[in-house]
Formats: sequence, C-alpha cells, structure tokens
Amino acid sequence: MLVFRTTKCISNSSFRGFQNKRLNSHAVIFSGIQPTGVPHLGNYLGAIKNWVDLQYTSSPKDVLIYSIVGWHALTLPQDPAQLRNAKLETAASLLALGIDPKRSILFHQDEVSEHLSLSWILTCMTPMGKLKRMTTWKSKLVTVRNANVESEVDDSMLNLGLFSYPVLQAADILAYQTTHVPVGEDQLQHLELCRDLAELFNKRHQKNQQKPFFTLPQAILTPCPRILSFRDPTQKMSKSSPNASSRITLVDSPEVIRKIIRSAVTDSTSGITYDPLNRPGISNLLTILGSFRSLRSSEELSSLASEYTGKGTANLKEDVADAIVEGWRRPRSEFERLREDKDYLVTVLEEGRQRAESISRKTLNQVKSLIGLQ
Amino acid sequence: MLVFRTTKCISNSSFRGFQNKRLNSHAVIFSGIQPTGVPHLGNYLGAIKNWVDLQYTSSPKDVLIYSIVGWHALTLPQDPAQLRNAKLETAASLLALGIDPKRSILFHQDEVSEHLSLSWILTCMTPMGKLKRMTTWKSKLVTVRNANVESEVDDSMLNLGLFSYPVLQAADILAYQTTHVPVGEDQLQHLELCRDLAELFNKRHQKNQQKPFFTLPQAILTPCPRILSFRDPTQKMSKSSPNASSRITLVDSPEVIRKIIRSAVTDSTSGITYDPLNRPGISNLLTILGSFRSLRSSEELSSLASEYTGKGTANLKEDVADAIVEGWRRPRSEFERLREDKDYLVTVLEEGRQRAESISRKTLNQVKSLIGLQ
Repeated sequence: MLVFRTTKCISNSSFRGFQNKRLNSHAVIFSGIQPTGVPHLGNYLGAIKNWVDLQYTSSPKDVLIYSIVGWHALTLPQDPAQLRNAKLETAASLLALGIDPKRSILFHQDEVSEHLSLSWILTCMTPMGKLKRMTTWKSKLVTVRNANVESEVDDSMLNLGLFSYPVLQAADILAYQTTHVPVGEDQLQHLELCRDLAELFNKRHQKNQQKPFFTLPQAILTPCPRILSFRDPTQKMSKSSPNASSRITLVDSPEVIRKIIRSAVTDSTSGITYDPLNRPGISNLLTILGSFRSLRSSEELSSLASEYTGKGTANLKEDVADAIVEGWRRPRSEFERLREDKDYLVTVLEEGRQRAESISRKTLNQVKSLIGLQ
Repeated sequence: MLVFRTTKCISNSSFRGFQNKRLNSHAVIFSGIQPTGVPHLGNYLGAIKNWVDLQYTSSPKDVLIYSIVGWHALTLPQDPAQLRNAKLETAASLLALGIDPKRSILFHQDEVSEHLSLSWILTCMTPMGKLKRMTTWKSKLVTVRNANVESEVDDSMLNLGLFSYPVLQAADILAYQTTHVPVGEDQLQHLELCRDLAELFNKRHQKNQQKPFFTLPQAILTPCPRILSFRDPTQKMSKSSPNASSRITLVDSPEVIRKIIRSAVTDSTSGITYDPLNRPGISNLLTILGSFRSLRSSEELSSLASEYTGKGTANLKEDVADAIVEGWRRPRSEFERLREDKDYLVTVLEEGRQRAESISRKTLNQVKSLIGLQ
C-alpha cells in the first residue's frame, strides 16, 4: 500500500469552504486532459464534469487553467491523422460540455514552450530512483513483459517518455504557480513528486525565507465516479475496448444511447440496490444517474436506489437513458456545430495559449533567473 | 571496445575534399559548447579552434551553427551567479577567439525552445536500453559510488538529466537538419544514437520514399589535440583542477603564461622528442606549439621536435610561451573589451537566436505536422 506522507488533500466540498475563508488570496487550479478525441461517459463524469463544476464552485477571483496535454499523448504510439483530429475534437468536446473560455484558460500544452523548459530544469533535479518508484511505471514494467513479478522484467524496451512524464506533469502544474490540482487517488503519487520537486527547488533557490518560490500545490480530491463498461461491469469504461456498445460517447444518437443502456449487463438479483462490490452493473447505472443529478456519495446513491422499490431494472434503465439523452442533448449538438467551426476553435485556443503563456513565462523568467540561465 | 556500426565519419581534410565535389548542396555544421566561462588552452585547441577554422575551410554556402548549451550545463550542479557570468564569458570568449557572427550562427541553446520540443518528441521514441548503454552514463554510474564494478552500483541517486541528455543532444543536432557534426572520438556513440533516432523517425514518418525527413548527420572527426596539465602531464588540462598553474586561460597575462610554461613538469630525459606515451610533458608542449602553427599529425610534431636538436627544454618552453602569448594577444584584449560591452554581446546573441530559431522552427513545424500535433 502506498503511503502519501505529505500531499495535502482537500475534498471538493472543503475546497468550497476554504474558498470562503480567504480574503485576498486566490487559488490557481490546473488540470490536464489527454487529446483522446470525443469523450465517453467515463471521461465526462470522471473528470470533465468536475472541471465544468469548478467554474461555478470556485471564487470568481480564482484562475482555472485546463490544458490539452499533447506532449503526454506521445508517450504512447499515435496515429498522426488520428492525433491531429483528436486534438481538435477534444477542444470541441470540452467547450461543448461546458468549459467557458471566458472563465477558464483552455489551451494546448504543446503550444506553450514553458512546460518543456521547466520540465528540463526539474529533470536535472530529479533522482532516477524517485521515478522508478512511481506505481504507474512499475505497472508498465509488468505489463510490457506480461510478467507477474516485477523483478522478472527490465525497462530496456520502454521509451524514456513513459519513465519521465511525471516530471513533465510536475512542470505543467508548477509553471502556473498552481495552488490546487483536482486529481483522482491514482494520481496522488505524481502530485507528491511534484510537491517534492517544488520543495527541493525552493530549498536550493530560496532567496527569501518568508516566501518560498514555488507554491506547493494541494490536491482537490474530487469524487471521481468510476464508470464501468456496459458489457462487462468488472472493467472500467474504455475507449480502447473493441466492443462499441460497452460505452456511450458524446456523438451517440438518442437511439444508440437507449439501445446500449437497454442491453447493459446487470445481474439476476431482483430489486434495485446500490452495492458496487456485489452488483457492479446495477450500481454503475445508479452512479451514472446520480452523477447527472449531482448525487455522488454512497448514501445519496443508496437513497436513489430506494426510489426504485417495487420497480424493475427496465425502469432504472429508462431513467438512466433519459438522463444521458437529456443531459447531453445540447452538448452533443454544440459539439457537432463546433467541430465544423475550425476557425472558432483555433481562435479560442489561441486566446487560451496567450493567457497560459503570459502566466507561465513569468514563472519561467523567474526560474531561469534564480538558476542563473538569465 | 566500442564498435560504431554505422556512424559515417570523415576527417577534417576529407571534409574539404567532399566540399569541393558538391555542386548544389550545402553542409549544415552544428556543434555545441558548455557555458563554462573563460576557456583554457585545452578548450581552445581541442574544440574552439576547430570551429574557427571551419569558417575558412568550409564552403561559403555552408551553414555553421554554434550553440552555447545552457540546458546541458544543468545536468551538473551549478552556482547561479557563476552560471550567469559563464554564459556571458563563454559568448565573449568565442567571439574574441575568432567566431565571426556574420559567418556563423552563435546562440544560447536555452533561448530557442525548439531544442526541448524535439527532445521530448525523441524522448518518446528512445528505448531506455539505448541510454543505459551509453558509456558516458556507465562511467557516471561507476564514479558516483566510487565503485569498480558496474554491477555494484545503481542509478537511483543520479538525476534524470544525466541519463537523458544524449537525447537532447540528438535534438540539438537534428533541429537544424545538420549534415555534419565536428566531434571527438568520445562523442561518437552519442552521434550514433542521434543517427539511430533520425532513422527511426524517418521510418515511422516516411512520406516520400525518395527523401527521408531527417538528414543523417556525419561526424567530422576533427584532430582534437588532448592538452595535458602543466603540473601532471598524465592528466587532461582541466578547469576544475585546484592548481591554477596546471592550466593557462584566455585571461592570463603574458607574465603568468611565461611563468606557468617555465615551471611546466616535463621529464629528466635529455633532448626534445615527440613521444606522448613515454614523454607526456615534453610532447604536450610540442602539441601546443604545433597547434598554434597548424601542425597536428605525429609526423609533423616529430619533425617539429627535430628543430630542437642540440637545444634544451628551456628553448622549447620559451617558444611555446611565445606562441601562446602572441597567439592569444589579440583575443585576450578583445575578450576584455567584449566582456564589458554587454549590450553588444546581447545584440549579437539575439541575432544568432533569431537565425537559429528560424531554421529550427521550420524543422519543428514539419515534425509536429508529421506526428499529428499540428
């Protein structure tokens, strides 16, 4: 089991509380998403919806920075034409699903050079051992050789990008003097590395004892519902599954959505109960329905289940399909419209790039001056 | 022993021959130097003089690109104030020693973002195993633990920059579609990695069978005289030696130069002969004298030694001191002048930056388009 020694975590609700307590300071919230193209329900409910919600739960003074992280996409093999298209469709999806480019800074990471500059500076401060301990790396090691025991494998075949991307993630965050990062628990170790590197930099280049250079970013532990496959509810919903009816994406028509939900695998137990361990299929449907109604805790979802006393799975499925069809009606048509309006997308992302660059350039100028490159 | 399978090497003299054979093509020659500040004789005769000479031996159509590689300096601990000063003094030294900013593109690597962009793209294509086989890395491994056997040590304490800088070097070279890289033999393995990465990229992103995207750079195997310490001629001349009289730097006065050469350690054998193995001290003096007279081969240096038949070490030392004092008279005063003219340096380096950026940006736009980021 991993122990996170120092990462400061606050929940989404205590973030709102924390917001109210501050007077003159403002939060800088950074998060990144891979350019994977049209999102599915799992992408939306697990991450994008949180970004959208933060626009309303944060204080108006807070800075929200959302990055489409093209450099990270390269750590896995990419088809160039697909990647180009996915960058465009990811931007269109985020806007369609509610990211407001007036409120949030939305931009392509690979168009702001400060990310890689800071990443190299941190690369020269990161001991190899720290990266070897990343569980994401260890699991890659095991996967690549299809082995069960870590010691059986070595890393010679894996590319250096897979090993070093947590340093780039740290740079993504620190380049904006980020105070808060919405993350799921699986990303806490990377945020811990980010904080370690920030502290190491602060220690080496402390000019002013009162004010360390880098802010140590805190995690906003967002409730990330883990949306499961409609064909095999023991697995996460995934873009890479060969069975298209295992997922619902933003471009699926109401007919397709209803058909997939109707045929979603559940179980043979009668009645509707929220029991993720023993009844993953039914619980997945409740999670989805709950998410669209902003119900997230186990208690809320159990209470939602009790609304179906005396009703069957078919009723629940109908409500889930309605929720998705209704919830995504406007985003879907907005996506179709935006995808064709390339000029608008380019303009919005260019504005985002300029705003991101102006913040990160300020940080990098200070960093380069502190380390002696300027 | 290392075997270089495919690196194409040509000597300095066959580079001149090769130049004459070409009609419409031009060479792009790239080389980098660390910002270590005021150079010593070893730096000058081992590398800088070759850069200066290439300005005259290359065809006027050839593009000469010389980079002060600040990003590479970060792989070792740096004092910020010293690094800032060293960047300035390295630029001033290169100009003082004869780099003509009209003929050559001279710039700071850390001011052109394309180096790190291409480096990240290559990082995501570089198997970890290739970097582990770099002899520079293996020797770091041995040094860090002061161990004798590689298997006794691990790399956990070393920073990721030390492991990954050969990829950045490859990017430095490829960003300019470099055709030729002047290198010493100890850098051939890194150039081999660069060629491997270029070939891999070409294979993956071949649009036109006739014309691979990246030019595979060739080594120009320059005769790099290895200048030795004046105190211990079994060691290379080094900036880090605590004994300042082991080296001569560009800022040393004629009096200091004469004093250091007069007290240079030689041997008790009588007569002057060129015999680097058995008489390193005397041979080092002949190498230095020869270098200033553009004599470099063993035959030329043996013939130079024979000019001292019947004379003693004192005569040789006087000639060596004269050669250094005379050869560096103008560069030294030019350096003193340039070091104070910061505005001029900034202007020259900014012009270099713009020229370097315009070439490398063209390459990177094409690369990003090929991989699907644009």
